[in-house]
Amino acid sequence: MPKEDRDSGGEAVGDEDVAAVEKAFEETEVPSWQNQITIRAMLTSLLLSFVFNVIVCKLNLSTGVIPSLNVAAGLLGFAIVKAWTVLIGKCGLLKQPFTRQENTVIQTCVVASSGIAFSSGTASYLLGMSPRTAAQADTGNTPINVKQLSVGWMIAFLFAVSFVGLFSIVPLRKVMILKYKLTYPSGTATAYLINSFHTPKGAKLAKKQVWVLFKSFVGSFFWACFQWFFSAADGCGFSSFPTFGLEAFKKRFYFDFSATYVGVGMICPYMVNVSLLIGAIFSWGILWPVIESKKGVWYSADLPGSSLHGIQGYRVFLAIAMMLGDGLFHVVYMVIVTGKSFLQRRSQTSLLNESTDGQIANFDERQRMQYFLKDQIPNTSAVAGYVLLAAVSIGVMPQIFHQLKWYHVLVAYIFAPILAFCNAYGCGLTDWSLASNYGKIAILIFSSWVGLENGGVLAGLASCGVMMSIVSTASDLMQDFKTGYLTLSSPRAMFFSQVYGTAIGCLFSPLVFWFFYKAYSVGDPEGSYPAPYALMYRGIALLGVEGFSSLPKNCLKLVIMFFIAAVLINLLIEILKKYETKYGIYRFIPSPMCMAIPFYLGAYFAIDMCIGSLILFIWEKKNKKKAREFGPAVASGLICGDSLWGIPAAILALAGVQAPICMKFLSASTNQRVDSFLSA
Amino acid sequence: MPKEDRDSGGEAVGDEDVAAVEKAFEETEVPSWQNQITIRAMLTSLLLSFVFNVIVCKLNLSTGVIPSLNVAAGLLGFAIVKAWTVLIGKCGLLKQPFTRQENTVIQTCVVASSGIAFSSGTASYLLGMSPRTAAQADTGNTPINVKQLSVGWMIAFLFAVSFVGLFSIVPLRKVMILKYKLTYPSGTATAYLINSFHTPKGAKLAKKQVWVLFKSFVGSFFWACFQWFFSAADGCGFSSFPTFGLEAFKKRFYFDFSATYVGVGMICPYMVNVSLLIGAIFSWGILWPVIESKKGVWYSADLPGSSLHGIQGYRVFLAIAMMLGDGLFHVVYMVIVTGKSFLQRRSQTSLLNESTDGQIANFDERQRMQYFLKDQIPNTSAVAGYVLLAAVSIGVMPQIFHQLKWYHVLVAYIFAPILAFCNAYGCGLTDWSLASNYGKIAILIFSSWVGLENGGVLAGLASCGVMMSIVSTASDLMQDFKTGYLTLSSPRAMFFSQVYGTAIGCLFSPLVFWFFYKAYSVGDPEGSYPAPYALMYRGIALLGVEGFSSLPKNCLKLVIMFFIAAVLINLLIEILKKYETKYGIYRFIPSPMCMAIPFYLGAYFAIDMCIGSLILFIWEKKNKKKAREFGPAVASGLICGDSLWGIPAAILALAGVQAPICMKFLSASTNQRVDSFLSA
Repeated sequence: MPKEDRDSGGEAVGDEDVAAVEKAFEETEVPSWQNQITIRAMLTSLLLSFVFNVIVCKLNLSTGVIPSLNVAAGLLGFAIVKAWTVLIGKCGLLKQPFTRQENTVIQTCVVASSGIAFSSGTASYLLGMSPRTAAQADTGNTPINVKQLSVGWMIAFLFAVSFVGLFSIVPLRKVMILKYKLTYPSGTATAYLINSFHTPKGAKLAKKQVWVLFKSFVGSFFWACFQWFFSAADGCGFSSFPTFGLEAFKKRFYFDFSATYVGVGMICPYMVNVSLLIGAIFSWGILWPVIESKKGVWYSADLPGSSLHGIQGYRVFLAIAMMLGDGLFHVVYMVIVTGKSFLQRRSQTSLLNESTDGQIANFDERQRMQYFLKDQIPNTSAVAGYVLLAAVSIGVMPQIFHQLKWYHVLVAYIFAPILAFCNAYGCGLTDWSLASNYGKIAILIFSSWVGLENGGVLAGLASCGVMMSIVSTASDLMQDFKTGYLTLSSPRAMFFSQVYGTAIGCLFSPLVFWFFYKAYSVGDPEGSYPAPYALMYRGIALLGVEGFSSLPKNCLKLVIMFFIAAVLINLLIEILKKYETKYGIYRFIPSPMCMAIPFYLGAYFAIDMCIGSLILFIWEKKNKKKAREFGPAVASGLICGDSLWGIPAAILALAGVQAPICMKFLSASTNQRVDSFLSA
Repeated sequence: MPKEDRDSGGEAVGDEDVAAVEKAFEETEVPSWQNQITIRAMLTSLLLSFVFNVIVCKLNLSTGVIPSLNVAAGLLGFAIVKAWTVLIGKCGLLKQPFTRQENTVIQTCVVASSGIAFSSGTASYLLGMSPRTAAQADTGNTPINVKQLSVGWMIAFLFAVSFVGLFSIVPLRKVMILKYKLTYPSGTATAYLINSFHTPKGAKLAKKQVWVLFKSFVGSFFWACFQWFFSAADGCGFSSFPTFGLEAFKKRFYFDFSATYVGVGMICPYMVNVSLLIGAIFSWGILWPVIESKKGVWYSADLPGSSLHGIQGYRVFLAIAMMLGDGLFHVVYMVIVTGKSFLQRRSQTSLLNESTDGQIANFDERQRMQYFLKDQIPNTSAVAGYVLLAAVSIGVMPQIFHQLKWYHVLVAYIFAPILAFCNAYGCGLTDWSLASNYGKIAILIFSSWVGLENGGVLAGLASCGVMMSIVSTASDLMQDFKTGYLTLSSPRAMFFSQVYGTAIGCLFSPLVFWFFYKAYSVGDPEGSYPAPYALMYRGIALLGVEGFSSLPKNCLKLVIMFFIAAVLINLLIEILKKYETKYGIYRFIPSPMCMAIPFYLGAYFAIDMCIGSLILFIWEKKNKKKAREFGPAVASGLICGDSLWGIPAAILALAGVQAPICMKFLSASTNQRVDSFLSA
């Protein structure tokens, strides 16, 4: 199962864990937001954006699995600018020292632009529109449901849809980061990394942490490198290790030796990891086997495993139901709480102060909050920006896709912020961005709305682009705001950097794709660039035009049940939180959002993360102080090292270099057959 | 490459490392040697001996790879007697508390009897005499070179040859253990284990060590258990992990994830491990490739890899040459030193006192030496015993094998003690018993001496039995003396126990073999019990009757060169030791004995051991005190856990249970072929 929904992979640090960080920076001046955006930073961003766009595009077209790149971006940004400043400094020409805020700006820009490379759908919904892909599906290959690709309209399309997302969630950043204190593991990890790079000399603990981080980083990097050698083909290597046996592996229960997720697990709260595991056990251990036993009754037994008419349909739709239930609950709950406080005429600042009152004593947090609230982006301008850009998009979209009417786009832009909130919230909890899931819902809804005769397939795919851009950008942006919060970067500088990065991405992403599209037979299942998602997305659109009635039996019933269950669980948590304060039972109720993710992906990453939890737990038992001080550093190192290996790995893949060895796992009987085949 | 030469697998502790041990036992009385041998100990020994004989016999006949069992014997002996004494104690009937000396006696007895199961050659030289095996070889299948197996003469043969070895080395035990302070890793590990079991309550450090040992033991056990699941067939699993690539794997350079050898590496001195690695790199990295490039010139290119006429011949004979050179040097050197001191009319005791003078301040060592020297086995009675038993054997052997004349046996018994010394010495350094190598030399010499027409094949195989018994027993006995030394057991009790165990082994081993021989088609290459060594040993005998001239080209030249090189290296060490005391360069000269072992086996275990060294090195860098205190416990745990898993694994093998998964390593191209085969 590809990690197509992931767009991250850093590691976070609970705020209390890094209580010593800002003390070390006390003497360091924080530059104004204009000075955080330097020319050298913008040039570095441009260069790195190009490199990352090539990597992401290539990976998108070959397997669709994108490793997290924001940690790598932070690291490389640091390396380039540091090298530059040291060089310039030696020449005596250095005017402005390299600050961590500048570093954050570069990282943000690169993440934004490579985020576009993913959400632009050049390997999924856009490619799914092409005649090449249409020819591979059974139905829907009619002129009105096909669009010839061209670099011109693709760039226009991306510029029309990509900037809207930036404005959709800006007003909520204070709630997410200051009130909910969401972890955003990747964003926090990046911040941690950047902070450790820029820690002034003499800060003893910070130096120790950097050293620990470095060791864990190097270890993780070489571990990833070692793993690479054994992964010659699909199903080879440590990522296919049937740790708990082949049967469990088929049910996606295995430990895949991913240092990234072990690190993520070390940062996420215990309950998040446990929720993931509970969800995985419930779905893959109980629910799917039960549904699969109805094979031939509830759904046709002849369907391939990936068909949304079959078991995969239950997985995707039940996961989406729970996530929507959880997400919507939080939207409604937050609206009520905010509304109430608004009625009581309290200013937003005092609300914040109240909600975080007891904890503000912490020096780090005081510093961070001060800078986070310093350069405001007014809510009015955010809303105005959203409305304006949405209006432009509503005007432009029907010009590009005449199958899509203006009211379709309008509806999309009305619902998008809610989904964007859900995604940003979930990502903050678990580090998983589920943008493509929301995109898939959009395909279904708009395809069935427009209908096959009116070009519903194309309309669905186009609306997927609208939705995914917003939802994906929202979670990326929030990750970056978390990074910025932890590095005292100005939200305004961050926002500017994200706009800049988005623009670069909108330009580079189609161009790089066009190069591949012209040079290779992209989309050919037998070729080097099969782009598996193009057909999958087109398939969802085809399902959509046939209507929900074509869903497998009882799926809709279950979807409704799971949606309600998610809402009820959240309600229970809130009620317990309010009325049962003695034991704090609410802390032991799993989160529906977390439980839903493994529905679709399986247990493997939940197991990685629980192992991370376990390591931290044992460490805390042994030496609580050390675990608190160095746990985040170890976790950051694990994630960073693993991510950084992604770059040489991508370069190797680009160069067509295959790993030399396949570590294969065969059942004893298959092994006998293979042995006799090989000795023959 | 099977570890057929191994007969051990414990872990040792430098004497200074466990300086706290005997303090903990200060209040515990050491029973007299008669009280160390109790009836319950003898019954337990009998039971365990039977179990271990079955396991060893089974493994011998299936793959020839025997795991080390003496640690497991110590552990199981403890468990049984402890359970018994606790039970009896609860009934108020316990008269004598369970002591560590008693535990050592049990362990010694079980090791002795299962040692016979290996050295009795029921899967090698004895089986090689049978018509079944003879029919598989090209030549030598004549009545005079074949002997029908029968349980009667086999028992008689074993009783005739097995006891001689016990007496051959007894006089040298003080030199080996007190003067040379050889480690005997397995013996020391067992002692360490037994000591930790019996540590009186209140000894804080010892309790901590036991806890560390237990954790490492459990970890190692479950790691071995986990490994088992992935080893469905040959070439599967972690033991075939091409850690450094497939090319290096072909040259036997890989880390095989064996906790046993990592543990052994943590105990052996750094220089031993480095010597092993140097030997491996020199032989498998340089020498064999050079010789293999002469394929078709120096030796026929059509030979199978295992033929002693080909590359395997160079490996075996050069290894033997270096070992003999090293061993003989030490024999001669020791004879000269002892002779000199004898001439100066110093008593042996004062020699000992002098040689260990500066170090005797250590409390542990004082205690141990006192008990080690308490119950003497007089040298005269040892020599008398050897002569008497050799005489009996000289009389009996020609009765059983009329191809062997009395003077052949006499010659064997004249040279055997020298080889026994070499083996015991090497085993003390490295934990490797090379008994079967010495047995192979005997086959060669006696086969060629007697000649094909006079039954040289059979004579060679029979003399192999004579030689192997002595050599193997000598190293086992010395391991046990080391265990006894470290547990304050009486040498006399140990010796008695070894005699008892040998008798059990001489009876059980042929009987258990006979059961397998009658029940299955033992020796059938396609069956479950191919007994690969039977044909190999017969092959060596066939080589012998054809004479050394049939050796591959230049092999004899190289053998002589390596023999001389080994002597010269040792000479250099001794000269430097005497005249260059400033830097102690002699400490950095690798040991020829150690270098020779990987010639034959490859680098994999040397790599394991170097990793053990590396772990200890890093640990010592970080915290020298902790590393010294707990390193041996961790290492013991690693070895014990891995060894103990050998028992359930053997039971699973006996029950015919195959591991469910094969972790296979294929080159990228082979993997493609396999994938297309499997999907076809």
